[in-house]
Amino acid sequence: MTQDFRQAALDYHAEPTPGKISVELTKPAETQLDLSLAYSPGVAEPCREIAESVDNAYRYTGKGNLVAVISNGTAVLGLGNLGALASKPVMEGKALLFKRFAGINAVDIEVDTENADEFVDTVARIADTFGGINLEDIKAPECFEIESRLIESCNIPVFHDDQHGTAIVTAAGMVNALEIQGKRLEDAVITCLGAGAAAIACMRLLVSLGARRENIFMLDRRGVIYAGREGVNAYKREFANHTDKRSLSDAISGADVFVGLSGANLLSREMLLSMADRPVVFACSNPDPEIKPEMALEARDDLIIATGRSDYPNQVNNVLGFPFIFRGALDVRASEINEEMKVAAVRALCELAKEPVTEEVLRACGLDSLSFGSQYIIPKPMDSRLLTRIAPAVARAAVDTGVARCELADDYASQLGA
Amino acid sequence: MTQDFRQAALDYHAEPTPGKISVELTKPAETQLDLSLAYSPGVAEPCREIAESVDNAYRYTGKGNLVAVISNGTAVLGLGNLGALASKPVMEGKALLFKRFAGINAVDIEVDTENADEFVDTVARIADTFGGINLEDIKAPECFEIESRLIESCNIPVFHDDQHGTAIVTAAGMVNALEIQGKRLEDAVITCLGAGAAAIACMRLLVSLGARRENIFMLDRRGVIYAGREGVNAYKREFANHTDKRSLSDAISGADVFVGLSGANLLSREMLLSMADRPVVFACSNPDPEIKPEMALEARDDLIIATGRSDYPNQVNNVLGFPFIFRGALDVRASEINEEMKVAAVRALCELAKEPVTEEVLRACGLDSLSFGSQYIIPKPMDSRLLTRIAPAVARAAVDTGVARCELADDYASQLGA
Repeated sequence: MTQDFRQAALDYHAEPTPGKISVELTKPAETQLDLSLAYSPGVAEPCREIAESVDNAYRYTGKGNLVAVISNGTAVLGLGNLGALASKPVMEGKALLFKRFAGINAVDIEVDTENADEFVDTVARIADTFGGINLEDIKAPECFEIESRLIESCNIPVFHDDQHGTAIVTAAGMVNALEIQGKRLEDAVITCLGAGAAAIACMRLLVSLGARRENIFMLDRRGVIYAGREGVNAYKREFANHTDKRSLSDAISGADVFVGLSGANLLSREMLLSMADRPVVFACSNPDPEIKPEMALEARDDLIIATGRSDYPNQVNNVLGFPFIFRGALDVRASEINEEMKVAAVRALCELAKEPVTEEVLRACGLDSLSFGSQYIIPKPMDSRLLTRIAPAVARAAVDTGVARCELADDYASQLGA
Repeated sequence: MTQDFRQAALDYHAEPTPGKISVELTKPAETQLDLSLAYSPGVAEPCREIAESVDNAYRYTGKGNLVAVISNGTAVLGLGNLGALASKPVMEGKALLFKRFAGINAVDIEVDTENADEFVDTVARIADTFGGINLEDIKAPECFEIESRLIESCNIPVFHDDQHGTAIVTAAGMVNALEIQGKRLEDAVITCLGAGAAAIACMRLLVSLGARRENIFMLDRRGVIYAGREGVNAYKREFANHTDKRSLSDAISGADVFVGLSGANLLSREMLLSMADRPVVFACSNPDPEIKPEMALEARDDLIIATGRSDYPNQVNNVLGFPFIFRGALDVRASEINEEMKVAAVRALCELAKEPVTEEVLRACGLDSLSFGSQYIIPKPMDSRLLTRIAPAVARAAVDTGVARCELADDYASQLGA
């Protein structure tokens, strides 16, 4: 990051007013009558209605279009445990993205505790305020327990984006990349470097989509997670195979797929060369990938590579997922975001990448042309069709799996587009 | 409340979108560059700065202009314990008023617990998110303990508006009314009907302003709270005097002041006639006052009467206080809202009522003229000078009492007016 960019980022956050979001009125508040409707005495009426039936909160308050972006700051970006308050710019940024991409009102909440019980209790007690909860930047393995306990105790969607958002976008890119390479997910040998929240969720979702657990080799800082290795938590143990492979070199030799959610420059040219024909490399470490795309493509030209960066093709960016997934879930008042809804999001992303790219996207990317292939496996963030494709797919899956609490309008997608 | 008004209130809340507030972007988010500043990778910079010094949260996030309006719904308006979620329209309404009157971003949080420990723990853990906390509609006596423990554990202002907001506006009106009646607060014999959060806070503030505790007679449902009465909580006991008075009739006979924070029509014509010469009656029960103003004024013409209603003169309305008190407190980053700041707000309200009424106010009220006197003892909510008078007075008091963490600009009032 250059000094100029660092300063630009600070200025963006500080000027002309601190932060990135504000709260605004959606109703008139000019006359005495306005105020008597908005507040006492008129406000008593919606209160009474909600006391009669909690469903009325969706009718008379902002709950149904309100997401809380919640963190305790224990795993902020790649920076580690900075504490709750220091994560606030990220959470406000996420709120900005929710609004910008899906029209969802979102507020950040920083919870000042590293204790999972305290975190769960706190969030569960305030959850009714919101229509959904996006958990963010909570370190593994606590994040797994926190999410599953909150899903259990809340009747609104609870979604840890570092897990599932990353997994959905990664999986969509992976499915398309394998198709282009003429391979099947069912047969692919996958090396996953990294065993944190995102890595585990990615591999779980790939398994949901057809990948075989015995073909997946996951590595943490100590090497391959193999069956019988000591000191492995329950989440990593899901991916502990019977194998003699111990190092990254062992694991990647002959692999079809590399998924990196680890650190800069950990994938060497030699390792890349040892992979199977027509490999797929997702080097998602940020800001510096596990291998630089130019170096990787110079080493072998039968490669498809994706990164987390916007300045290379095939950016794996969570903003392709969470705004639209929540949009669909909120619009049918889903009680949760289940596996079928995640898979529906993956499929919708895959399909959109195969459609002709719009002028809007080409302009935003400064390109003359772009079409489905090794340089374009997933949609671009500026593609406005993301909203009208992913949200309806997710909403439909919610309805089909019985977790929706209201119906899906026939013209829902066109309402979204309007 | 007429059926038409009830329906208008429901429609106001439901149409065209549910609720009254939204979250909006304050920074550009159109280009790839915008997004890289607002979110990854640029957002890492303000995170790092805040990890270095929490003060930087005021520079790079919205914390400094963000208030949480928090309730557990145990005392919603005059409706009682409706539960947390049913209080949401009130809390969103309060957020709307914060923005409308003082430009403060406010979000509502409903905490689903009636247990004081759980409530305090929950709010304390999320408090860093905000620049201030407005507690609302929490029943007595729990509200006292909750507020004092949160003031203790948070380093931002925590203000239970049902107590202090009500007290400040009531006290301002009272000081002016007594002046008009040619009486001194120090000498006034005061009957307070009601012994909840608002009543106790009002009487405490009147004592701060000079009223004598031995001249105050407070009544709860069981009558006068006298020294030695059994089953009286510690908060009511503050106002337990040695007296033979037992009933409201006993207490009000010869009283200079009646403050009603109780219920409709509890003050009879006979009681009113038994009060001292030139009495002051604050009949603040909502929506129906302790005595109807037209009935009271028909009974005696030496009276000054105030109510909670906008359709009579002298409306005691919390919106005259909390937006501007928080504005002043936030702008100097006060660590608390102390007694001196509350008194400063009272004095500023008293003085503003004595100034000539502006055209703006006359228009909003549909009046040809209005001037300081028995029909106009406190400012009107639509008076835009409230912001430029109260906030600076509160901010100045914070600086003078050493609870401000940043300086007060010389031209602060004119900045506010701009």
